[in-house]
Formats: sequence, structure tokens, C-alpha cells
Amino acid sequence: MKVLFSAGDWRWPQWEAPLRAALAEAGVQADLLREADPAEVDAMIYAPGGETPDDFTPYVNCKAVLSLWAGVEKIVTNQTLTQPLCRMVDPGLTQSMVEYVVAYAMRAHIGMDRALAQQSGAWEPVAPPLAGERPVAMLGLGALGAACGQALAGLGFPVLGWSRTPKDVPGIACHHGADGLRDVLSRAQIVVTLLPKTAETENILNAETLGWLPQGATIINPGRGPLIDDDALLAALDAGQVGLAVLDVFRVEPLPPEHPYWAHPRVTVTPHIAAETRPETAARVVAENLRRLQAGAPLLHLVDRRAGY
Amino acid sequence: MKVLFSAGDWRWPQWEAPLRAALAEAGVQADLLREADPAEVDAMIYAPGGETPDDFTPYVNCKAVLSLWAGVEKIVTNQTLTQPLCRMVDPGLTQSMVEYVVAYAMRAHIGMDRALAQQSGAWEPVAPPLAGERPVAMLGLGALGAACGQALAGLGFPVLGWSRTPKDVPGIACHHGADGLRDVLSRAQIVVTLLPKTAETENILNAETLGWLPQGATIINPGRGPLIDDDALLAALDAGQVGLAVLDVFRVEPLPPEHPYWAHPRVTVTPHIAAETRPETAARVVAENLRRLQAGAPLLHLVDRRAGY
Repeated sequence: MKVLFSAGDWRWPQWEAPLRAALAEAGVQADLLREADPAEVDAMIYAPGGETPDDFTPYVNCKAVLSLWAGVEKIVTNQTLTQPLCRMVDPGLTQSMVEYVVAYAMRAHIGMDRALAQQSGAWEPVAPPLAGERPVAMLGLGALGAACGQALAGLGFPVLGWSRTPKDVPGIACHHGADGLRDVLSRAQIVVTLLPKTAETENILNAETLGWLPQGATIINPGRGPLIDDDALLAALDAGQVGLAVLDVFRVEPLPPEHPYWAHPRVTVTPHIAAETRPETAARVVAENLRRLQAGAPLLHLVDRRAGY
Repeated sequence: MKVLFSAGDWRWPQWEAPLRAALAEAGVQADLLREADPAEVDAMIYAPGGETPDDFTPYVNCKAVLSLWAGVEKIVTNQTLTQPLCRMVDPGLTQSMVEYVVAYAMRAHIGMDRALAQQSGAWEPVAPPLAGERPVAMLGLGALGAACGQALAGLGFPVLGWSRTPKDVPGIACHHGADGLRDVLSRAQIVVTLLPKTAETENILNAETLGWLPQGATIINPGRGPLIDDDALLAALDAGQVGLAVLDVFRVEPLPPEHPYWAHPRVTVTPHIAAETRPETAARVVAENLRRLQAGAPLLHLVDRRAGY
């Protein structure tokens, strides 16, 4: 079986060893290729970007396109992609999101930037308040928001949850609706946005709602780019209303090099990695589907092309 | 009651509001002073450093010296200090240590330095392995080591505990003795040192034991300066054997400005703040002791001068 790895040059060094290990573990004989005559490819491991194909037509013998991404909205509309398409359901994804949110919340909380900037011999002990005095707003209480909120609560932060409709998550003080949002934001020193992108949530952080925050609050957005009105956030950062923004998702990705977020001293841009598929856990999902392909068994996580996911 | 705040100029802005709030909460009438005729001082809030006195003799009417530090080894031997001395027992201390250890462990784990260095428009998604694949060694399983180890285990890290004598801490794979140390260090990608300073633990991280670590390991020392052989650590950093060292405690404090740790690109120095007394929680302990002083009640956390703590 010839398997083409078509997911961007920069990913190959991360994926090669985990894929080979997972294939061996699953007992799958496969040639992992970086380039191939399209007609000879039996299966494709795929992620958008880089030199990956826009036109899947020449892959006439390809019996499965195995996405490394959970979200397939960018390729599901590609009319040339008629091969069976599987999305990635990586058991490491929630864990990955929790680690990202905890790491950047702790950076903001303990004032790590101050410590890192102060390596010049100045011994000036200043300790931050404890987590118990640092309310965190968790906007979105789905699987990811709930897991991140509970991890932060476990570390001692008071977590104020918000969702459009009422929810009940143990360890999180849950609010909802428009009044609830104002309540939550007016107390939160750290705001994490993990809402789905819908008509109701687009630009939920805008000039008005950012104005409700205490001065100097931190925004962490590993959810969806359109949740934030970018111009309003930049204005709030320049005014000091927002002290730090850690942004993992954007309206346009990759974030264009000229975008003001990149150079802004109070913004950290990460390249959509908060819930990036992790080679170590995801390679096993790929290997299992290749095993199924060889055995003629039904593929896992097959995309319903009409539903779009 | 005249209360002298004698704990370093830089601390006053951190302490003034919490102290006033705690005094009001405790119903204590007291003048908080920054300077005073020593003979008029009724009580002293004290931490070593800055302009604080070496000679307590002139404070003839001072009925209590309330240390802001838990460790009083630096003043308990001062022969001029004959006034009742109370050490700080701050309920926030363990929490503070947990937050410091989690924050810097997460920084190392998710590769935050790489993200912060990469704000130049380069979109290069690389996700770290998950916590479950990043073993952490916790050297020392006392109250602080156990709490930090359990917090890290709660976030998904495999935690390998080590203590001189056998211990059993839920959630931590406990090892002990010389063989156990080699076992633990040879697997740990992050090492946290929270051992007491004794003859057995001095220089426990030395050229030999640092050599057991996997290449590029991170050292986090919020315990005691002498746990580390500084020359050996610098050599291991320069050789790349240790990838990052986060150091909060040192043989000499403040760490002298010319010490190579300050400027080393792979070292983060923090000024002994991991378990720094927190004004918000500790001010209540100070206020309670001042209330007791006024009421003629026994003081809390009075130091046994013969035992030294």
C-alpha cells in the first residue's frame, strides 16, 4: 500500500516517527511517501496548506483521504474530492486545549513576562495575588470549555462560566444570556473564549463587551477567530483596557505577516496549535484506518458529505 | 498602637492596602508607620533586607516583631532581638508554590519560549507532545513537593517522586534512595527540587546526577539554593544537557548582579518569590496577631528561640 503524506513540508519531521511507530504497532505494511505518481497512491494523509493538492482528480486509485484535522470545512466543499474522507478524532485534542489554556492563563496570572524581562540583576520580589483572587471567565461550556474551566478551577481560580443557554458544570459558576455575559466579563481578569462560531457569537468580544472588563484583563482565544472584533481588541490593547491577548485562531489563517497582531507588544500569536492534532496520539488513529482499509473494514470517522462533518 | 512597617521600601506598595483592609476587618486601631522614634514603636512588621534594623535594642517598648517570612533563621540568631518574635504561617504558601511550579512547568512543556520568540509573522505550527508523554521528577515529597506533584499529575503529567526515605503519595510514583534517584532522573524531562537543605541533599543536582537526565531537560528549583552545584548546572546548560533552568533560590540572596545565572539565555532567575508571603492572605495573620496583642491574648506562631523556629 502506497500512502502519500500530503500535509505540508514542515509537518513531516513531527509525523514521520509517530506514523512509522503506529503502523508497526498496528501491523500495517505501508510505504509512506512524500511524493508519488498520483495514480499510484492508495491512500492519502492530508492537511491543508503548503504543497498539498487542490485537485484530487488525478488520485484515481486513492481509496481514502485521512485528514489530520478535526475540522474539514475547508475541504469538504472541494468538488474534486470524491474519495472517502475521514476526519481526525484525536483523543489528545481536549487534553491539548487544556494544556494550552492552563499554560497561558498561568503565564498571565503569575506575571511571567515581568520575570522574563527582568534578567538584568535587579532583585525585586513582587508576588502576584493567588489564583483564588483571580476570576477567570470561560465563554463557552461545551466539552472543551468545560474541561478547561474545570482544570483552572482545580488550580484554585474562581471560574465564571458563560454560555448562550443555561448549563450546569460542576466546579464552574455558570451564567448565561446577555445579562450573564455582562456579569461575568465585569469581574474577569482572564477571559478564555471557547464558543462555537455562530451568528450569535460572532464578534462577541467587541468594543462594548471589552469595555466591561476590569482594566488590564487578559484575553485567551483558542476558539474561533471571528469571536473577536479585531479592531476593537487592538483599540482596547492600545488603551490598556486589555493587558495581554493570546490568540491562536484568526479570521484569515495563516495570519498575514503584515497583520498588526504579530508585532503588537501585548499580543502573543500562536499558529492554530492549541488543539493541533498531536502526532503521538493521532498517528494511531491514522494507522487504525489504514489497517481497516487493508482489511476491507469500515473506516472510522468517515465524513458525511451532505452534513459537512 | 504604633506599628512600624520595617520590611523594605519596595514591599510597602504591595502591603499597604491589604494591611489596612485586614486591620479594619479585625477591628484593630493601629497607626501603620514607615518611620518612627524606636522608643515609640509598639509592634514591628518585619522582613530582612533594605533599611530594616540589625539592632533591635532601641525598640524598648516593642512588644512583638511579626515576621513576614516563614523562615526566621536569619534573625533568630540576632542577640539584640529580645522582643517576642512571630513567624509567618501563611495559608497561601503551599498554593503559591503550586502556582509557581505549574506555571513554569507548563512554560517548558508547551514550548512557550518558542512561541514568544516567533512573533515575526512566521506561521509554523508545531505542537508539543502531550503532558502524558512528559515525565516530571519531583525531588522532595514533603507538604510542598506532594502538593506540586499532585497538581502536575492532575494536569496529566506522569510524576516520578523521589525522597531520601520511602514515602507514599497518591497519584505520584514514589521512589527513594540512591538507586531511585538515578531511576527517576534518567526518565525526567522536567525536574522540580523541593527538598529540605540537609547534608544529604546539598548539591544533589551535580555533574554526575545532571548527566543522568535526558538531553534538554528543564530544572525548576523553588526549594533551596544549595540543592544545586551551580558550576555543574552552568556546564550542563552550556552543553545543552539542561535546556532551561528556572531558579528561585540561591546560595547568596539577592543573587549578585554579576552572577552568570542572570545573563544566561537558558536561565530564568526569579527573586525568591515562589513561596513569597502573599499580602492578601498574610495581612490577615498580621492583623490577628495585632488584635491579640491589643487584647492581651497569646500571640500566634511565636518562635521558640531555642529550637530556632
